[in-house]
Amino acid sequence: MLNFIFCIHNHQPVGNFDHVLEDAYSRAYEPFLKKISKFPSIKLTLHTSGFLLDWLCEKQPAYIDLLAKMVDSKQVEILGGGFYEPVLAVIPEADRVGQIQMMSERVDELFGVRPRGLWLAERVWDPTLPKSLKDAGVEYVIVDDYHFIRSGLKKEELGGYYISEDQGSTIKVFPGSERLRYLIPFAPVDAFVDHINSLEGNLKGRAAIFADDGEKLGVWPGTDKWVYGEGWFESFLEKIESFGDTLKSVTFSEYIDSEEPLGRVYLPTTSYMEMGEWSLPAHVSKEYGELRDAIKGFEEGEKVLSFLQGGTWRNFFSKYPEANWMHKRMLKVSKEIGEASKSSSKYIIKEAKKHLYMAQSNDAYWHGVFGGLYLPHLRTAVFENLLKAETLLEKNPLNLVSTSLEDFDCDGFDEVIIKANDINLFFSPRMGGALMAIEAPVMGLNLTNVISRWFEGYHMKLKEAETGLTEDTTKSIHDRVVTKEEGLVNYLNFDSQRRASLVDHFLRQDESFDSFIRSTHGELTNLQETPYEQKLNPNGLTLKGQGRVMGSAFEIVKDVTITGEASFSASYSLSLADVSSLESSVCNFGVEFNLMLPCCDGPACYLELNTEVGVKYGLGERAEHENVKKIMLYDTFTGVKVTIKTSVGVGLWRFPIETVSLSEAGFERNYQGTSFLFFLPIEIRPSSKLDLRFDFVIEKI
Amino acid sequence: MLNFIFCIHNHQPVGNFDHVLEDAYSRAYEPFLKKISKFPSIKLTLHTSGFLLDWLCEKQPAYIDLLAKMVDSKQVEILGGGFYEPVLAVIPEADRVGQIQMMSERVDELFGVRPRGLWLAERVWDPTLPKSLKDAGVEYVIVDDYHFIRSGLKKEELGGYYISEDQGSTIKVFPGSERLRYLIPFAPVDAFVDHINSLEGNLKGRAAIFADDGEKLGVWPGTDKWVYGEGWFESFLEKIESFGDTLKSVTFSEYIDSEEPLGRVYLPTTSYMEMGEWSLPAHVSKEYGELRDAIKGFEEGEKVLSFLQGGTWRNFFSKYPEANWMHKRMLKVSKEIGEASKSSSKYIIKEAKKHLYMAQSNDAYWHGVFGGLYLPHLRTAVFENLLKAETLLEKNPLNLVSTSLEDFDCDGFDEVIIKANDINLFFSPRMGGALMAIEAPVMGLNLTNVISRWFEGYHMKLKEAETGLTEDTTKSIHDRVVTKEEGLVNYLNFDSQRRASLVDHFLRQDESFDSFIRSTHGELTNLQETPYEQKLNPNGLTLKGQGRVMGSAFEIVKDVTITGEASFSASYSLSLADVSSLESSVCNFGVEFNLMLPCCDGPACYLELNTEVGVKYGLGERAEHENVKKIMLYDTFTGVKVTIKTSVGVGLWRFPIETVSLSEAGFERNYQGTSFLFFLPIEIRPSSKLDLRFDFVIEKI
Repeated sequence: MLNFIFCIHNHQPVGNFDHVLEDAYSRAYEPFLKKISKFPSIKLTLHTSGFLLDWLCEKQPAYIDLLAKMVDSKQVEILGGGFYEPVLAVIPEADRVGQIQMMSERVDELFGVRPRGLWLAERVWDPTLPKSLKDAGVEYVIVDDYHFIRSGLKKEELGGYYISEDQGSTIKVFPGSERLRYLIPFAPVDAFVDHINSLEGNLKGRAAIFADDGEKLGVWPGTDKWVYGEGWFESFLEKIESFGDTLKSVTFSEYIDSEEPLGRVYLPTTSYMEMGEWSLPAHVSKEYGELRDAIKGFEEGEKVLSFLQGGTWRNFFSKYPEANWMHKRMLKVSKEIGEASKSSSKYIIKEAKKHLYMAQSNDAYWHGVFGGLYLPHLRTAVFENLLKAETLLEKNPLNLVSTSLEDFDCDGFDEVIIKANDINLFFSPRMGGALMAIEAPVMGLNLTNVISRWFEGYHMKLKEAETGLTEDTTKSIHDRVVTKEEGLVNYLNFDSQRRASLVDHFLRQDESFDSFIRSTHGELTNLQETPYEQKLNPNGLTLKGQGRVMGSAFEIVKDVTITGEASFSASYSLSLADVSSLESSVCNFGVEFNLMLPCCDGPACYLELNTEVGVKYGLGERAEHENVKKIMLYDTFTGVKVTIKTSVGVGLWRFPIETVSLSEAGFERNYQGTSFLFFLPIEIRPSSKLDLRFDFVIEKI
Repeated sequence: MLNFIFCIHNHQPVGNFDHVLEDAYSRAYEPFLKKISKFPSIKLTLHTSGFLLDWLCEKQPAYIDLLAKMVDSKQVEILGGGFYEPVLAVIPEADRVGQIQMMSERVDELFGVRPRGLWLAERVWDPTLPKSLKDAGVEYVIVDDYHFIRSGLKKEELGGYYISEDQGSTIKVFPGSERLRYLIPFAPVDAFVDHINSLEGNLKGRAAIFADDGEKLGVWPGTDKWVYGEGWFESFLEKIESFGDTLKSVTFSEYIDSEEPLGRVYLPTTSYMEMGEWSLPAHVSKEYGELRDAIKGFEEGEKVLSFLQGGTWRNFFSKYPEANWMHKRMLKVSKEIGEASKSSSKYIIKEAKKHLYMAQSNDAYWHGVFGGLYLPHLRTAVFENLLKAETLLEKNPLNLVSTSLEDFDCDGFDEVIIKANDINLFFSPRMGGALMAIEAPVMGLNLTNVISRWFEGYHMKLKEAETGLTEDTTKSIHDRVVTKEEGLVNYLNFDSQRRASLVDHFLRQDESFDSFIRSTHGELTNLQETPYEQKLNPNGLTLKGQGRVMGSAFEIVKDVTITGEASFSASYSLSLADVSSLESSVCNFGVEFNLMLPCCDGPACYLELNTEVGVKYGLGERAEHENVKKIMLYDTFTGVKVTIKTSVGVGLWRFPIETVSLSEAGFERNYQGTSFLFFLPIEIRPSSKLDLRFDFVIEKI
């Protein structure tokens, strides 16, 4: 006799589009639940993450109603989790407990029973989890069999649960089967049956455990047709029924209540195997993926694989500085809520926590084969919620400016943070005094929510496929490269730095716009890698950079001042001295902004130049202009206008930052913001000077 | 120009013998420091763990004096650490901070400067360390390059420090070079020179970082002759001097003060590569070791190795139940101190913490190629300190008995803990109601400090070598099997259970003593795997086990009662019923004790039987006796006497538990306690009964 545990996890990230949820509902969540409800003897353990759960309650009450009936009849056990599906390992301990309890209370309210188990987001294990989970009232948790194998256990020992522990707090841990993850629903039902039969008598604990994403049953390309249209799911359920007494369908809790633990276990910092590949630095990730595939062909390949480990989830913070920035911004808000909870009202704290928790939704912080970090609307949701939380807490009626110095992003160098009620500016003196973030907190807006065009290990595949270099007709459907549009290879431009604002450049006068777009241009001196000195003022700061350009010593002084509501100015004063060359020459001094509006390059967004009001330019266009004195960016959907005025007429290069990344439906291109380079010439001669002032204003429209 | 960072870690475990410290001092610590003091331009970063530091202060003040001078002259930087060298990852957060601060204060007191850096015991990394270290005032920490490689970094990126982070707390992390660990001091100095030359221009950060155990320079077999006698160390130091400006000798802090971090990094739960092998379950450990060696020969072997990961340090708690038991006992005492700190005096708490910290010294909790867990005196020191700490806290003037039920050892089943002022008993109802620990807290004594004879991956090598099966004359010195005595293969007996007391057995009457010693005998029914019911009484508990033996139903009731100071009784009542066989037969019912005295089987320990006072038997002997009514165990060195009286004359088998394990000087045999099986026959017939009572008394002599 074997047990079969069937566990489904349905999830939608905070900030996802309504039409995406509707689509997933009609293609997966609804047909799945309706179908399985017709097989009352088949037990289901179900997890629904908070953003989706709220949506279902509001938009699909009949679904919740059916689910509640199935819970009442004991067909379904509801799993808990962190409410908005955070990676628990990287959020503060108090938030871990808070998010889990929020979900437990909601489940209790909806279904009349508190969850005993927890769905661990992305199965990212951390050795300290047993304590946090115990503190939050969780009895058991599900990870992958891979976690256990990485601790030296064998597959045949993984048909039940083990006890794990931290600081004396224990938790029951179930291993979900990787083999079943690949069989359900992608293989014919007979393959599942063969696998179940092969386990009989060979599995300690006697439970075949399947736990995976519900989107694989309907949302993944082609699966709706296969799973429901062609009847895979129905015959799967019928087959389970037909096993009769030899395959007992149980929930996790039913299993626990009748079976003892199989032992004690300590798990490493790991997730499922694929995550190990994704979290490595791009070049190494590629190497790892290729090596893993090669090892499968080795004589002792299976053994070697059981000891193979890629990166860990936290690596995403060193891989993507933008993910790190969001994470540290989140930690800052979490800390502020902790401090405010002594003085603020319970209601305010509860609301602020809700927004903080929403901002902890994991998807925006990483990237594997789905969009994740590369989806601007997910990042937008993170910043919006963080700023809403912070705005709820902050009391600064006189709109005083505060400036502080701290290593905000944990890179070993201090940032300068300037805060007023309606604008926050984050500067990195170490990175050429660049402006890393411009936030309009009351509008819930981070205007610098841009991501650089980073190299990804999988880009090579795209290049090879599109250039036909390694076209191999024997490749199976899984290996074939699918793209959402033609010619994506032309968008493979790579940056080596984070895209910030007030980034200074010395460029040759004949530098080409195209090279600048492709980041293949030459910097006469790399100002973004030059440390600037900073001096804090009551209303801003002064940054000073020094070095040599074209044989001349230079000094750049940029004075940043908060000038009013949601506005600041940056006054540049550039002077040359100690010129070694006798011949005078000229170069361009440029100041770069990278900006992002919530509606991206959609139809609600456009740009106006100088006094040409009514002449709308698209934010996704590339163009060169002369004698620019003002640009105005509009997002008419969210009602935001951003104006940048210059003190003198300058040249302007503008172009969209576009990334090419993997999604479940293949390679896709995403607009990530617009880059603006304002520039003007400076003569390289003794006592040469240049003054330039930017006035930056954010308004509600 | 390269930097060279030379870091030495000197360590002795709490509880180690004085003569071992003296030997290490004269062979390594003293000649090392004296020699390097003659080369004032060569900077040293030195760590000395607390037990050794205290010993040096007391026994070798001249060493401390010389060291202080070298600190004053800036030749030496002193590293901090957890005072008694705990594995920080597995001790409570408060103790992490407490141990580190204790060391920082001591270093400040001795050398007038607080340490900025920390030596991480066994380089066991945990993702939560940055926060604990920051809280304890630590600025930097040293791990292996392996940690960084496991995060996807390349060796050539590891010539400096990175920033790591947890919950916003940052710490600087240096990677120590594995290559240098193998070169120093084992290769000729020229090989070191070649390596340094090969790094020039190829190393981000430009620091060659060596950090390793000082015992490798003098204590490891043969190294004293090589390092000092044959002048390796002197020529090593001369060579460094001779590099002049091309190799700048610096301490970690000097490096930090002049160089920027190389980036941000997140490290997985890992240690040095070898630890990954040791911490895996024995069979898997063997597999892993063999595979790793095979991979070295692969075409892309180096690449595969960079992704290979064995077990993590916490695995030792699932590998060795005795290590787990010590760890959970330690956590319990730590928790008790935390609770008592509100009500007890500062002095008491400080003393209790000191003993707790001593008990956290890592060596006794694990096993690699040194004795560690297999060294009884290290385990004795753990229990002695834990009991001293607990005794300091406990106030129970009426010597009342308390009984409680908790999953003490975190295996998913409750234990029963009976506590009085002068005796603590720990029972496991799930494991046949066995008595897992007998503690005499006032004497600082755990009489059940026994370890089972577990199979180790390396045992096969011993077997192959001694039986000559794979004798290979081409093997290098490193592969050759070295044993401290002949015939160790005969001691390779393996247990499948933890060795406890009040362990019940049904044995055939013709079962052989030899099979029982070897654990190859047959249990008529496995009582240690039978769950017993427990009922707590005010003065003890009743345990009840049921099952079938030789066709008959049986019920075993054991009544355990605290009978006075440091004494208890166990009354057995065994009854049979429902006998299916018509022919009457007989089997033996046996009760096993496994006991350990602090002096082990040394000359201070002996045994007396019945009334034969003055007839001394050795605890390391094996023997059979008839009609035994009393045994008395003496440890005349620590002044302890243990008496076990039986209510009727019984048979007795006694034999030493001896393990065979690796030490730095080869395979060795260790006495781990004595097993006593008291038995008497029972007839298998309806209404057959057997009553047997044990009186167990611990006394000071």
